[in-house]
Amino acid sequence: MNEFDIIRRFFDRPVAADTGVSLGIGDDAAVVRIPAGQELVLAMDTLVNGVHFPENTSAAAIGWKALAVNLSDLAAMGAKARWATLSLTMPEADEAWLAAFAGGFFELAQQYDVHLIGGDLCRGPLAVTIQVHGLVPAGQAIRRCGAAVGDVVYVTGTLGDAGYALHMPIEEAAGEWFRLQLQRPEPRLTIGQALRGLATSAIDISDGLAGDLEHILRASGVGAELSLDSLPLSPSLETAVGRQQAVAYALTAGDDYELCFTAPSGSGEAVQHIATETGVAITAIGRIQADSGLRLGNSMASDSGTAAYRHFS
Amino acid sequence: MNEFDIIRRFFDRPVAADTGVSLGIGDDAAVVRIPAGQELVLAMDTLVNGVHFPENTSAAAIGWKALAVNLSDLAAMGAKARWATLSLTMPEADEAWLAAFAGGFFELAQQYDVHLIGGDLCRGPLAVTIQVHGLVPAGQAIRRCGAAVGDVVYVTGTLGDAGYALHMPIEEAAGEWFRLQLQRPEPRLTIGQALRGLATSAIDISDGLAGDLEHILRASGVGAELSLDSLPLSPSLETAVGRQQAVAYALTAGDDYELCFTAPSGSGEAVQHIATETGVAITAIGRIQADSGLRLGNSMASDSGTAAYRHFS
Repeated sequence: MNEFDIIRRFFDRPVAADTGVSLGIGDDAAVVRIPAGQELVLAMDTLVNGVHFPENTSAAAIGWKALAVNLSDLAAMGAKARWATLSLTMPEADEAWLAAFAGGFFELAQQYDVHLIGGDLCRGPLAVTIQVHGLVPAGQAIRRCGAAVGDVVYVTGTLGDAGYALHMPIEEAAGEWFRLQLQRPEPRLTIGQALRGLATSAIDISDGLAGDLEHILRASGVGAELSLDSLPLSPSLETAVGRQQAVAYALTAGDDYELCFTAPSGSGEAVQHIATETGVAITAIGRIQADSGLRLGNSMASDSGTAAYRHFS
Repeated sequence: MNEFDIIRRFFDRPVAADTGVSLGIGDDAAVVRIPAGQELVLAMDTLVNGVHFPENTSAAAIGWKALAVNLSDLAAMGAKARWATLSLTMPEADEAWLAAFAGGFFELAQQYDVHLIGGDLCRGPLAVTIQVHGLVPAGQAIRRCGAAVGDVVYVTGTLGDAGYALHMPIEEAAGEWFRLQLQRPEPRLTIGQALRGLATSAIDISDGLAGDLEHILRASGVGAELSLDSLPLSPSLETAVGRQQAVAYALTAGDDYELCFTAPSGSGEAVQHIATETGVAITAIGRIQADSGLRLGNSMASDSGTAAYRHFS
């Protein structure tokens, strides 16, 4: 198999006429059409073997996650996902590996109607770079810089599970559930789009809530107080490590790919409506304040919570 | 230096208001505007250390070339370059290396008014993935599939020099000139744009003329006869290895990043006008025929030329 055979067999799937693709895989470049009144939103992320995923990660999980972490960035902007490009570097062309990788990638791609339109294949140390392309109505992308004093801070889903999965003992009984949180994050695209015009800022949580919320605070020139008691933790995680350690994972472990966003204090009902519609919990965890910096409220502030937060300061 | 420091110091350069960038580096994703009547052209290429460039290649050369090979793809489509995203994976954050890499990258980027709007930085084996984004008037991208019987086959510049640079003896007297051809290819963007509405097909030569022209022939359902006597070879290459070996390099060595294109037989004057305007030689090297496959005309066909060509069949 040369690179052209691999592309044909595993990656070149037909793209329907209504997808905005004028020219897909197979030329020097792809060509797409952007509808009038829309802006193009671009995010690119690389996963490196042994750095972003353990060496024994399945090909299907790598294919899913490499796309998911990119779609998560589009979700944080409130964009609708449209097209992806993929650069896959691998030491050898193993058919079973390629089939599984493509299976994981396209399973997620189809779920969100994302079309693979180009990329590159190379020999080298295993790494995956994906760029995703989405659309937002002009001027409506959700940025990090709009958080205002008095806004409520929200997060989707539960936090800390993926971080624990990376560190848990191999014989862990509930291991499979945690591994799923680590390897198959669900990009919150539907929620992100519903937040347009409602959220004043948003970010996806890849490096831990504390560090990622800091990006919003700095970009917006504000501070925040979080209520650690309010952090959404899965019962599995609390059972596995206890609440205090679970909070530390939530604040700093990362790899959650949930959204953290801010919205005006009167928007609680609208936010809960989105949670009901999507079936994903959305939890108020704090409030934006004028004083810069992140303050952790309740007794844990003097314990693991604060220690964890210092890790990022 | 963490990744945010590196981005701020070496990669986050101000982008002017008239560049179509609504949001550049520093959020979850970038946002750009596509002018009405234009289509977006996307190309992504990865360079891996020790595979796409020798391990001792300078950082400045890697920065230039990683962008150049991508812009070359936009050139082959007739697109105007606009924006780039960059994923840089490196074993350690070396300041001098980063400064030199960014220097090479931005030197070329400024030459063609390309703006870096996003990307990723990771720790891992040295590799560079770049995606470039260009614009063409809707429906005017030059594809591989339009070559018609009777069209003339052209190439820009000279061929084989970069391929020889990879294999030449280190003490080679004329080495510096060849190394420049290998490390600093000039993307033929100006020629590509001038070819819109004139060329019936185009490709950039990355894998050797024979193999890349084959892509045009297959996509167009035609064949071609090349005149090996007409291949544009640099005097330096002919002097270094003799004409016969130089032809072999031109046909198969690759890494030239010149354009190969086809145009109707009556367009010779228009093509020569482009050559004069850009100061880059454009040479007629063959003709499109109905019979599929590539035929190499003149005495060399039975010698190294054919052997080299079989390498790709």
